[in-house]
Amino acid sequence: MKFTIEKSNFLAGLNHVARVIAPNSLFEILKGIKLELNENVLVLKASDSLVSVEFSIDAYDDDKEIITIEEEGQVVLPSRNFIEIIRKAPTNLIEIETIDNNILVKSGKSEFNVKGYDANEYPEFPVISKEHSLTLDGKVFNDIIKETVFCTAPNDQRPILEGVNFTLNNKVLTATATDSYRLSRRQITLEEVADDKEFNLIIPRKALTYFQRMIEEGKDQVEIFYENNRIVLYYQNVVYTVLLISGNYPNTNKLIPTVFECTFVSNGRELFDAVDRVSLMSREDKDDIIKLIVKDNMLEISSQSKDLGSAVEEIKVESTLEEDVFEISVSGRYLKEAIYAIASEEIIVKFSGELTAFIVQPADYHRDIIELILPVRTY
Amino acid sequence: MKFTIEKSNFLAGLNHVARVIAPNSLFEILKGIKLELNENVLVLKASDSLVSVEFSIDAYDDDKEIITIEEEGQVVLPSRNFIEIIRKAPTNLIEIETIDNNILVKSGKSEFNVKGYDANEYPEFPVISKEHSLTLDGKVFNDIIKETVFCTAPNDQRPILEGVNFTLNNKVLTATATDSYRLSRRQITLEEVADDKEFNLIIPRKALTYFQRMIEEGKDQVEIFYENNRIVLYYQNVVYTVLLISGNYPNTNKLIPTVFECTFVSNGRELFDAVDRVSLMSREDKDDIIKLIVKDNMLEISSQSKDLGSAVEEIKVESTLEEDVFEISVSGRYLKEAIYAIASEEIIVKFSGELTAFIVQPADYHRDIIELILPVRTY
Repeated sequence: MKFTIEKSNFLAGLNHVARVIAPNSLFEILKGIKLELNENVLVLKASDSLVSVEFSIDAYDDDKEIITIEEEGQVVLPSRNFIEIIRKAPTNLIEIETIDNNILVKSGKSEFNVKGYDANEYPEFPVISKEHSLTLDGKVFNDIIKETVFCTAPNDQRPILEGVNFTLNNKVLTATATDSYRLSRRQITLEEVADDKEFNLIIPRKALTYFQRMIEEGKDQVEIFYENNRIVLYYQNVVYTVLLISGNYPNTNKLIPTVFECTFVSNGRELFDAVDRVSLMSREDKDDIIKLIVKDNMLEISSQSKDLGSAVEEIKVESTLEEDVFEISVSGRYLKEAIYAIASEEIIVKFSGELTAFIVQPADYHRDIIELILPVRTY
Repeated sequence: MKFTIEKSNFLAGLNHVARVIAPNSLFEILKGIKLELNENVLVLKASDSLVSVEFSIDAYDDDKEIITIEEEGQVVLPSRNFIEIIRKAPTNLIEIETIDNNILVKSGKSEFNVKGYDANEYPEFPVISKEHSLTLDGKVFNDIIKETVFCTAPNDQRPILEGVNFTLNNKVLTATATDSYRLSRRQITLEEVADDKEFNLIIPRKALTYFQRMIEEGKDQVEIFYENNRIVLYYQNVVYTVLLISGNYPNTNKLIPTVFECTFVSNGRELFDAVDRVSLMSREDKDDIIKLIVKDNMLEISSQSKDLGSAVEEIKVESTLEEDVFEISVSGRYLKEAIYAIASEEIIVKFSGELTAFIVQPADYHRDIIELILPVRTY
């Protein structure tokens, strides 16, 4: 393999795929990045077994030559050091040549001879059937991830809850995540999808957070091909293959209350800031408890810590309560994260009882999103 | 104690003094910040036993009222949480009131009751005699620290080498640091100082790096009062008291070579970048060895790693060598840090032998600074 490439294009590709690499991988070769140069395309590959990425760089960008190819071929390079070598290279054009498993890097008067891995030992990425697919707007997909992924269960609990459940039924795409103390559910109707198209997939958190970073701007379409145990996402010049979590995701619809004892509407930012301040006194306690009291269109938020002291704050809300007082205790962090995910100017909070899960939603229901939080028993 | 204070002024003071606090201090009360409000000045105090800081906020800044005082007094507050409470306070004016050791913080509709410490248990800061003092330009002092402190020995080696030695003799201020593998010495003549003023002090690294951050802009004068075992620095509205390292700093003058076998002059930036690149292949090895070969006005820099591969780079230099070749091995990091400290467009490197210490200096000698590095034996 021998080629000359524009530094910035090469570096962008290397950095993109390197993010998926697990530095402590059990498989030495998965600490590397595979380069494949064939038919005017350089493909950079990296994988952590769960998520595999292929980043393509065309030799020509319109009429501009990005890669000058002298000889096709493939090699696996050690990612960490190699990226710094390219980043620090003194010239804009970088010459790469392989001799067996060694990679020669020339840039101006600087020459590196980098030990690589045997390309034949690099695992083949699985091939997926292209029978079933769905196209989503990148921004919409990114939003759905942001709105749900924070509610997945931490590692080492129930593996099935470590992913987000994506289902499609009657044109409605539903994304659900829960750690069994709280739940986030976002729904969206996809008008252009056939009525009878259906799926039920659990995408692991790690793949979603990685993917979210990669499509941050989210200006293009994401094409998703799915099978029982894996999905493949096409986004711009990159292909991501993801192993899914297998098993049956619990049916969470029955958990969502429909009758409410007390509701209030509040400015989202004001409520977030007040909860943020009051939880300064609770966040170091295991349960991170803050107390909410609704009364006369006022919400009192308070916390009490044996070691640190106490905090209390009042904000004006529009409440459905008239003479009564409604009181509930909740994790400060869960409430903050729910308000943040709702990201709405006005939010509505709906309580069905002092010991049952309550709902946080946009007050104008402009997005079909539900955040559900279980209160904390304090007695 | 009861007062109202501008949020931004209070926060600046709290952040400034908090940086000195050791979060794992053995003395619980040293995790706190002491407030003393007397005679129209609020003083914030913090200490890690080695460095103690006093930050003063005047009640009036010209005609503008910064603090409205209702009652003088003192209290010790828990630094970490308290600073966040002030940072997140919703209003620009913050009301502070103490009740025993509790601190009430009011800002708009937000109220905190923070548990503090007993102010009587906070240690008194030592008082220094004002007999001996020296005034230095803040920027000059900052430069001297930057040029020397990186050569101090790491912790748990010879305690005396964990500081920078500052001496004054015949108007010449000398700052020296060495970890016994390399040395940095900066001298400056202070014309306005009396001929017979003398000192010999070892200021601990921790105090210098902390102080460096604090005077970063360095636009004012630093007034330094010194005694045998401590110094007190006055800078703007802040007073720093520092315990010195006791003992006799080694005489390092005899280590500096005066006869040279080979010297070269190079562009500082070019040399730094080349060494930076080549040491990508050596930096993970314990000795971090790069090899320098001077020949025919060319410098070849190379490195070799059993695991990673090799690197080589040539740069043009002006050398005093004619037909010979001069070869030496050196730690890549030490050489990079020396060039960085010299911070000169052109630098001169002076070798007295392949196994003896060599010198890095500004080629135009515009500052009296010497970086000395011991080579690495490779056989």
